[in-house]
Order: sequence, then structure tokens, then C-alpha cells
Amino acid sequence: MTGSESGDPWEMLRSLPMGQRVEISDGAGHTWTGTVVPRHEFSGERILPLKIASGYNLGLRIEPTYTVRLLEPARSRTRAAGPPTSTERAAAAGARHVALLTTGGTIASRVDYETGGVRPVKEEREILAFYPDLEAAGPVRIVPVFDRLSEDFTPRDWMTLADHVVAAFGRGAIGVVIAHGTDTLAFTAAALSFLLVDLPGPVVLVGAQRSPDRPSSDGPSNLAAAVRVAREGGFGEVVVVMHDDLSDERFAIHRGTSVRKMHSSRRDAFHSRNGPPLGHVDGHGIRFTEAPRRPASGPPRVDGPLDEKGGLLWFYPGIAPERAAAFAEGLRGLVLAGTGLGHVGTQHLDWIRAAIRQGLVVAMTTQCLDGEVDPFVYATGRELQRAGVVYLGDLLPETAYAKLLWALGHGAGAAEVQALLLADVAGEFRWRRQPGAPA
Amino acid sequence: MTGSESGDPWEMLRSLPMGQRVEISDGAGHTWTGTVVPRHEFSGERILPLKIASGYNLGLRIEPTYTVRLLEPARSRTRAAGPPTSTERAAAAGARHVALLTTGGTIASRVDYETGGVRPVKEEREILAFYPDLEAAGPVRIVPVFDRLSEDFTPRDWMTLADHVVAAFGRGAIGVVIAHGTDTLAFTAAALSFLLVDLPGPVVLVGAQRSPDRPSSDGPSNLAAAVRVAREGGFGEVVVVMHDDLSDERFAIHRGTSVRKMHSSRRDAFHSRNGPPLGHVDGHGIRFTEAPRRPASGPPRVDGPLDEKGGLLWFYPGIAPERAAAFAEGLRGLVLAGTGLGHVGTQHLDWIRAAIRQGLVVAMTTQCLDGEVDPFVYATGRELQRAGVVYLGDLLPETAYAKLLWALGHGAGAAEVQALLLADVAGEFRWRRQPGAPA
Repeated sequence: MTGSESGDPWEMLRSLPMGQRVEISDGAGHTWTGTVVPRHEFSGERILPLKIASGYNLGLRIEPTYTVRLLEPARSRTRAAGPPTSTERAAAAGARHVALLTTGGTIASRVDYETGGVRPVKEEREILAFYPDLEAAGPVRIVPVFDRLSEDFTPRDWMTLADHVVAAFGRGAIGVVIAHGTDTLAFTAAALSFLLVDLPGPVVLVGAQRSPDRPSSDGPSNLAAAVRVAREGGFGEVVVVMHDDLSDERFAIHRGTSVRKMHSSRRDAFHSRNGPPLGHVDGHGIRFTEAPRRPASGPPRVDGPLDEKGGLLWFYPGIAPERAAAFAEGLRGLVLAGTGLGHVGTQHLDWIRAAIRQGLVVAMTTQCLDGEVDPFVYATGRELQRAGVVYLGDLLPETAYAKLLWALGHGAGAAEVQALLLADVAGEFRWRRQPGAPA
Repeated sequence: MTGSESGDPWEMLRSLPMGQRVEISDGAGHTWTGTVVPRHEFSGERILPLKIASGYNLGLRIEPTYTVRLLEPARSRTRAAGPPTSTERAAAAGARHVALLTTGGTIASRVDYETGGVRPVKEEREILAFYPDLEAAGPVRIVPVFDRLSEDFTPRDWMTLADHVVAAFGRGAIGVVIAHGTDTLAFTAAALSFLLVDLPGPVVLVGAQRSPDRPSSDGPSNLAAAVRVAREGGFGEVVVVMHDDLSDERFAIHRGTSVRKMHSSRRDAFHSRNGPPLGHVDGHGIRFTEAPRRPASGPPRVDGPLDEKGGLLWFYPGIAPERAAAFAEGLRGLVLAGTGLGHVGTQHLDWIRAAIRQGLVVAMTTQCLDGEVDPFVYATGRELQRAGVVYLGDLLPETAYAKLLWALGHGAGAAEVQALLLADVAGEFRWRRQPGAPA
């Protein structure tokens, strides 16, 4: 490896382009090799942020005595060239490639110098600077779709994403990875599970809890695991791949309909509810806990539309019936996250009965997040069920909401929507309903 | 032990009073001893439901050849008499007794013959029939307060309960147990944590996931553990005692501000969030994970009132800003359960800014349920925080809601309410805020 060298390292620092590989020597026998990534908010001008081989970021304080050597792009073990260009990826489109749809979110974000907060990026070049090893095991075609944080997503965006997934398979992808903000990643995963039909390969949502320009970001290892599952998974459904524990070595594969973000900041925040994850990925490969859905042979399609006239309301003691009733106004369907086995205060029976008579579809889930709802154990449940509330077994409130929008988009009348809600559309009901089964 | 005997067991069955101790013999060497409890919904006339010594219920099919012997009330190891009467309990009021406030809920419920669902009971006699060993370790004074399922509780009921707790200590109780429906038990525990000040002894909320007239109810073992903690705990705060696992031998003691029902039906449904439980109870005694609050020497009091003009709204992708804004109308305060570190879609910034300008207090928690909110990591959080949203660290949405009602009841203006929300009132902030601390 050869390269140029500068006598004034601080001068050099200012002109180093993002993605440049460098070797730093302190003149006392220490050298550091890595790729220049965007500067961290609080790092001074003399701090050089480097992504080193392990995937971790290093903030190196450059002293006047140090030397900076520019290196050629890293040679991948499996490819002859350095970071791929758009042209290369276009050529690879016909080959066995994985499509990476970027949407923003922490996994494709960096610190914003103005606000000090984290802002999403969209540029391929910047994404590749964060993830220099992206194509270590084969070609990846990057398709920027959005550049926003996931709390800003709407159901319309879920439909757009579904279209992009189908298009990616149409261009020959063997699997699709969606880099997504973690905040609403589970909502999107559930929605895509209902929207995407006849998938010929895996659709893998992945995120990061810390942005890739920060030390110990989980982005590189999560993305590598997701790309691997998309490439080697050999199944045809929507999953989420994220850290299974605090190491960088074990990743869980969650079904899109059973997963939830259960911690605001830990890298192992995502959990499957009501049972184990679908499988795991680690150094030994991919192992499944239960059989994943087989890939379809026919072309994939989007089974839309979603109707956005659905809502989700979490019950709490003290919520006035009038407030809850007003929340439901103008909606065609409402998912309630009730207490326990699926209850709301009996003070709410009147407006629920009236709204159902006027055509509102009301579905019940539990805010416990684990276990099933069951209208037959308590008097309140019986009365709600008699009023026409549909009990949705072990569906998470978020999954039930995504399914409601899908069902509203497919069913003409309330009865039809209710029937669609109760049908097992995407393997979302994990438990067979067993009335009276001991807990 | 002697008793009368009947030649026609079926005839006998019809006249057996609830709470009667009996011995059944099948004439072939088998005998069963237990207390008659109310009949289960589906049990026929020939099935005798018995609570046996282990605390479990048995549904015994009585054949014509069986004999039924009426027994005297069981002698407790520590007391000379059988099940206590109201008179006895009144006498015990001056002694070291535990007060048991019953409010309904599964722990004091039985099957309703009309609906087939479970209905709460209020009668002391019926409660004692379910829990014949209640006073095994000392006197318990039963105070029926409500007879309703907990989904019907309102914040007004929390204040009534707080008054009853203070009254019970005033009558000499060394600890207070509140038997409560599990559905909203954690809400009540949080509210009482803020309402009750200078507690001279433990206040222990307890519930059951299966009603005491059903086989394998968790009611008897939960209640025994709760009474024990109330009698021997020696601390001065509000806790929840429930099964820690699926055995009948280990119970967790959760702080009232950090506990949540996390499963709709399992007996180990209650979990402490953001850390381990305060302690455990098992055959070896009570052990604490961290130091509980010391009992106060002064008299306890209710630090009310609660102001019911507070609300709780869980954000989801697709919720229209107008719908969310309308939900907040007429409220003085609103807790948002946002995504991740405490976000809502930026489409919502406008109405939140406008509402705050008009005096609404808006507080942020995370729907992840574990971890803290932090406005300083992402641009959305910074903008919400600049708009005046108060970030409530690691408070559960439910705890934040209870605290909001308390703060609204104590603060005149928005600034005062915000300051109260941010103060550590009842040990509810488990984590010191550490900006930038790695997860």
C-alpha cells in the first residue's frame, strides 16, 4: 500500500474527503488505519473520526508530530475493486444481488451540526462511507427511497415502500433489505407483512440504535446480518433483523407481525412477542426456530391499498367516554388497546355500541403486549363482544392497527372488514385460540 | 373431629353452605377434606367444588355411594378459633393487625351464573370462604371498599382508596393490603404512590389472574404473600406483590411506580421496568434488592387532590394531527407515549406548539416501556423540547399519567405543574439522567 503524506497533519485533516482510507502514525511506533467518517458533533478540528476494521469508530486526536498517509480504497476479499460505484451496481443488477432500500433513520443518519441532533442522509456516497464492507459477500444495489426519521412515516409511505420492494425483486434482487429508523420500524414491518404477497425472497427490515458516525454504532453489524439474511435466508416473508444481545455476534430474525421495540436505546431493543424469534444469525449461520414461509415462485405483488381511516386508542382509567368517542369520529375502524384480556371501562359500552351501529369496526387487543385477549372470561368482555367488538387473539396493538388499515382497504362493509381482521392473513396469529386453556 | 353424615350425598350437596368444611369418602378408602366454595360455571349439580389444604380447588364428582361428613371449622395453628367473625376482627383492631381492603377484581370474584363471566364479590363471608387461611399468621381486618372490576376504576376511586388506607392505619393497622383487579392495578399503584405520604407501614396491592373459585387460582398464594409483606415488610411505601414465576413459591415485590402488567393471563404477568423488583418473598422470608423507603413516624396523610383533566395518548404513524389535537381539547395536561427516545411525527409540532402556548402541559414518555426518553439525540426531540414538551426520563406512560393528575392537582400554572412533573416525588425516576451515556 502506497500513498501521499503531509508534513502538516492539521492542514491535511481539513481537506480529507469522507470515505478516504488513511494510515496515521504517531512517530512513536503506533499506527491506525481506517476510513474517514463524518465528524461527531462535539469533536474538535484536531479530532479525526475513523471507522476501523472492527466496524467501530475511533476519534483520534491528531498531534503536530503525527503523519497522515492517504491509502488506496480497501480491497475486498471477494471483489477486485474498492467501494462500488453506481455503474458497478447497475451492472450487478442482473446478477444475484441484494437490494438495499434506504429510508433514513439512525442507520443512515449523522450528527447535524446546526441542531446537534441526528439527521438522516440520503447520498449513496455517504452511506458507503459508513458501511465500507457492505459488499463483502456479494453485490448490493442501493436504492435511496426516503431520507426521513421513522416517526415521520405515514401509511402512504408503507405503500410506497411496498412498491419499491416489488420493483427491486423485478430488477432481479434475490432479497431486499430496508434500512429504517427504529422508532416505527415494527409498524412498517407489520404493514409490509400484509401488503406484500408472493415474495420470491426475504424482505429484511433493519435499523440502528446509534448512528454510524458514532463510536460503537450497531449499524454496521446489524446491516451486515440483514444483508446476509436477505442473501442466504431462502424464505419468502417480511422479517426484522436486529441485535439479539449486547454483543456484535448474535442477531435475531423476528417475524414482521410479532416484533416490537421494547427499549428506547439498547441495541437489543427488538423482541418477538408471544414466543421466540423466527430464528437467529451468528458466526455459524442462520438457524430457524420454526419453519419460515417458503419463497413464492410467482412474481411478487402489492396487495393494497391501505385505507388510512383507521385509528388506535390505548385505554386508561379516567379517559372520558366522550373523549374516546370523539377520537373515533370520522374513522371506519378503531383498534382498542384494552386492559388485561381485552377490557375497557363499562362506562364506554354506550358509545362503542352506538359507533358500531353506525358502521365503525372496533377491534380489541391487549396493552399487556403478551398473551391473548379473550372476551369470554369476564362480564365486561362478554358485553363488549356482544356489542360487536372483534377480539384479535394475540395480535399486538401495532400489528392490529396495520392489519386494520389493510382490511379497511379490502373490505367494503363492516362485516367484510371484521372477517378479514379475524382471518390469518400473514401468519400473524401465533396462538390457536384455546378457550379456557390454563395460562 | 366429628360431624354429621348424610345417607343421600346428592341431597346433601344442595344444602351445603359456602365455607362449610367437609370430608368426603368414596367407600373405597379415599377421602377428601376441604372447604366448600362457590360452584364453577360448568360444573353440574353432582360436582362439589372444594378448596383443599394446598389452596387449590378440586371439583369432586359425587357418586351415590359416597358419604359426606360435615366438619367443624378448621383450627388455625396460631389462633384458637376458626374463621374469624366481624366481632373478632373488630376486637383485633387494637392489636397488631393487617387491614385488607377489598375492591373486587379477580382476586375477589366468582363465576357469574347468568353471563358465564366472572363477577366481583363484596361479602366478607364469601371472601373468607375463598381464603380460609387468611389469618394463619395473625389477625386480618377485612374492609370492603368496592366490588368492581378494575377496568371500571376512575381517578376518583384512587382518592377514595387513599382515604381508606389512611383510615386503616388510623385504626392501628401495621400494614395495608389492597385486593385489586389486575387490569388497572399498576395504574392504581402509581397513583397511590403519589397520593400517600408519611406511610408508617407497607401498602401492598395484590391481585389474581384466575378467580379463587377456579382450580389453580393464584389468588390464595398471592394474598398470603401480600399479607406477609404487609405484616413483616417494615417499610413505608406502596408496592405490588404478585407471582414472580409459575410456581406458588416465589413472589416479587414491585415498586408502585415501576410496575406493569405485561401478560394478559399468566400468573407472573407483573414486571418491574428499568430494573429488578424491589425485592422478593419466598419460604426463606423477604429479601430486598435495594433499600425500601423507611416507615414514617408521623401520621400518614393523603396528599390530594388529583385533577382529572389529564390525558394519555399513544402516538402511531398515521394519526392525524387534527385528531391528536382534538384529543387534547379541554385538558390541562397530556402525557404522550411517543416512539423511541420520545418522538412524534414532526407533522404534530404545530398543534403541540399551539396547545402549549395556550397553557397545556405536554409530557413525553416512551412506548418502548423500557429505557429513558431523551430530547437531545434527534432533531425531532430537540424541536419538541424547544416547543416546551417536558421529557420524563424513564417513567412508564401509566406512571406519568398518574403523576400528571397529581401534579395538576397541586400546581396552579403550567410552569408549576411542569416543575412538579420533573421532581422526584416518590422515587419514581429509577435512572439518573445521563445524557450521552452509552446504552
